[in-house]
Amino acid sequence: MNLNTILPKVESLSQSLQAALVDKINHKTKPLGALGQLEAVALQVGLIQQTLTPQLSNPTLMVFAGDHGVVNAGVSPYPQAVTAQMVLNFLQGGAAINVFARQHNMRLRVIDAGVNHEFDANTDLIHAKVAAGTANFLQEAAMTQSQCEQALATGASLAKQEAAAGANVFGFGEMGIGNTSSASCLMSVLCAIPIEECVGRGTGLDDAGLAQKLSVLKQAIDFHGMRGDNALEVLATFGGYEIAMMAGAMLGAAEQHAVLLIDGFIATAALLVAAQLQPNILQYCVFTHCSGEAGHRRLLAHLGATPLLDIGLRLGEGTGAALAYPLVQAAVNFLNEMASFESAGVSTAEAGAGETA
Amino acid sequence: MNLNTILPKVESLSQSLQAALVDKINHKTKPLGALGQLEAVALQVGLIQQTLTPQLSNPTLMVFAGDHGVVNAGVSPYPQAVTAQMVLNFLQGGAAINVFARQHNMRLRVIDAGVNHEFDANTDLIHAKVAAGTANFLQEAAMTQSQCEQALATGASLAKQEAAAGANVFGFGEMGIGNTSSASCLMSVLCAIPIEECVGRGTGLDDAGLAQKLSVLKQAIDFHGMRGDNALEVLATFGGYEIAMMAGAMLGAAEQHAVLLIDGFIATAALLVAAQLQPNILQYCVFTHCSGEAGHRRLLAHLGATPLLDIGLRLGEGTGAALAYPLVQAAVNFLNEMASFESAGVSTAEAGAGETA
Repeated sequence: MNLNTILPKVESLSQSLQAALVDKINHKTKPLGALGQLEAVALQVGLIQQTLTPQLSNPTLMVFAGDHGVVNAGVSPYPQAVTAQMVLNFLQGGAAINVFARQHNMRLRVIDAGVNHEFDANTDLIHAKVAAGTANFLQEAAMTQSQCEQALATGASLAKQEAAAGANVFGFGEMGIGNTSSASCLMSVLCAIPIEECVGRGTGLDDAGLAQKLSVLKQAIDFHGMRGDNALEVLATFGGYEIAMMAGAMLGAAEQHAVLLIDGFIATAALLVAAQLQPNILQYCVFTHCSGEAGHRRLLAHLGATPLLDIGLRLGEGTGAALAYPLVQAAVNFLNEMASFESAGVSTAEAGAGETA
Repeated sequence: MNLNTILPKVESLSQSLQAALVDKINHKTKPLGALGQLEAVALQVGLIQQTLTPQLSNPTLMVFAGDHGVVNAGVSPYPQAVTAQMVLNFLQGGAAINVFARQHNMRLRVIDAGVNHEFDANTDLIHAKVAAGTANFLQEAAMTQSQCEQALATGASLAKQEAAAGANVFGFGEMGIGNTSSASCLMSVLCAIPIEECVGRGTGLDDAGLAQKLSVLKQAIDFHGMRGDNALEVLATFGGYEIAMMAGAMLGAAEQHAVLLIDGFIATAALLVAAQLQPNILQYCVFTHCSGEAGHRRLLAHLGATPLLDIGLRLGEGTGAALAYPLVQAAVNFLNEMASFESAGVSTAEAGAGETA
C-alpha cells in the first residue's frame, strides 16, 4: 500500500466565521465569557461545521479492542483473557461504556482490532482483526509496518462509514490488557519525554508493580533505540492494534469534518500518532477529560489541551468521552437556543467597572 | 415566628448501607476506583436514599431572584432592571438555564423572592416576594430578622412542595444584580476569611472596579462589625432575599432526603448559611462546579468540597448544577446497570502488581 493513498487528509479549518461566531456568543444574555470553556467549544464546533448554527447528529462511540504481547512480561495483574471477556461484556450491554452510551443516546460500535480470541461471527461485533494480539515489544516490533498500515486504513474506513451514515461527532474508546504500557512508550518516544514521566499506576499498581512496569518499559525503549520523528515506525514498534486502528479512525473522522471527542491516556496517545501524521487534526479535537493515569496530565500539557472533566476517571472504553458529551451538546445548544440581549430586551453592561450578579 | 418551628431539621445519614454500597461498586466490571468521583457520588446518593438501587426522579431547578440595595453604591455595571429583565427571559425560555434544563429534562421553577419589579400575575412565575429588593447594607441591615425568617420559611415550603410532587434531586440557582457582593460579605463574616479573599471580578470587573467593590464591601463589614456565630443575623445583614430563600429551600429539600446540586459562588454562600443552621445538610450536597468567580475556590476549600466541573463557569442561574446533572445521573446509572465481574464472567485481578489496561 502507498501510505499517501490510504491516509486521510485533514484540512485546516477556515477561520472565516470566527468573528461572526464570537459576536453571536457575546450577544447571548450572559456576561462576556461567563460560560467558560463551553464558549470555546461552541466556537470550535461552529468552525468545524462552518456554520453559525451547528448541529450534532448521530453521536457515535467507536471502541477498539486489541491484545498486547508485552503482557507476557508481567505488566498487568489481569490475565489477557479479560480483553475478550470485556468485549463480550460490551456486546451484552453490561460495561460502563454501555451505560453511558445509553444514557446519552450515543451509538456504540465495538471493533475487534486484534484480540487474541476468535469471536462468534453472529454478533454485533465489527470484525476487523489484524492479528490475534501484538508481538512482545520487549523482543521485537509489536507489528509489521504492513499490519500497522492495515490497522490505520481500516480505522479510517470504519469512521468514514459512520460519517456516511450521518455521524458528525465521534468518541473513541479502547479495551486492551497491557495498553497503558503501549501508550506510555508511544508518549515517551513521540514526545521525547522520559519514560518515568509517562508511566502510571494504571488500575492501582502498588510501588513494586510500578517499578516493575517502569523497568520493563525502559528496557523496551532502550532495546529499540528509536527516535520519535517517524510516527508510523514508532506506532508499529510499540503500538497496539486498537491504538493504530483508533488513530486511523480519528483521521478518517477529521477528514469528514466531524467533532472528535478525545478520551483518556490511550486515546490521547493514539491522537499523538494521528497528529504527527496530520497536525490539523488537533483543530477537530475536544479533550473530554484528564485521566487519573499519571502520564495523561503531562500528555495533555504537551498538546496544549484543556480538558473538560477532571474527575479521576481511569477506565478507558471511551467513558470520559461519553460522560463529557452532554457538555459539548450544551455548548451547541446555548449557541442555537439562547436569546440575545436584543431579542430578550435585556440591558447590557454600562461602561465602567463593577460586577453584575 | 419561632425559628425552631419554621426551620427544617436535617438528619444525619445512616451509614448502615455503606459497606454494601462499596461492595456493589467494587464488583462492577472495572478496576477499583476507576470511575473516580462518580463512585463517591454513587455511594452518597445510595446513602441519601438508603438503598442499593437509587433512582433520581423529577429533577428540579429552583431559581430564586432578588434585588440588592447595595447596587446604589455602584458595585455593578449592569442596571438593577436587569434582574427583572432576566426573570422575564427565564419565563420566555431564552436564558442559559432554560437551555440546559430543557436538555436534561429538568423542571425549572422561577421564584420572585424579592425583585424590585411588579410582575404580571398571569405567568409561570412563583410569586413569593418578601420585599421589592433589600436595603443597602452599607447603611443598614439588608432586611429585618422577620423578613429573613419569612424568606427562609418560604424557601423551605416551596422545596417541600416540589418534593411532595416527586422531586428527589434539586438544583438551586439565582439571579440578582449585586449578589456577588452580598455573597462575598456572607462568606467573609461566616468563615472569618478576609474580605479581600472573598471578592472577585464578577462578570469581568477591571482593576479599578475590583478596587471599588472591595472598598465598598470593606466599609460595609466595618460598619456592621459583626461576628460570624449567628448565621441568621449575618444573613439578615448582608443577604439577599434570593439567597435567604434558597438557603431555606436547601434545608427543606435536605429534610426530605433529596440530593442537593450546589451551583456556584452565590449558591455556595446560601449553603454556608444553611450549614451553620443544620450542619448535616452537607451530607446531601453534590458540589457541581468551581466557578470562575475568585472567592468560590476558597469557599469550596473551606467546606472541604470537591466539585465535579471546573470549566470557568461564572453565570449563576443554576447553570453549573444543570450542566453537572448528567454526571450525577451517570453515577446512579452505573450503580444500577453495570454488570459485576461475576455476572459478566470477567476475570478479576490476580494477586500481585501490574496495570490492567
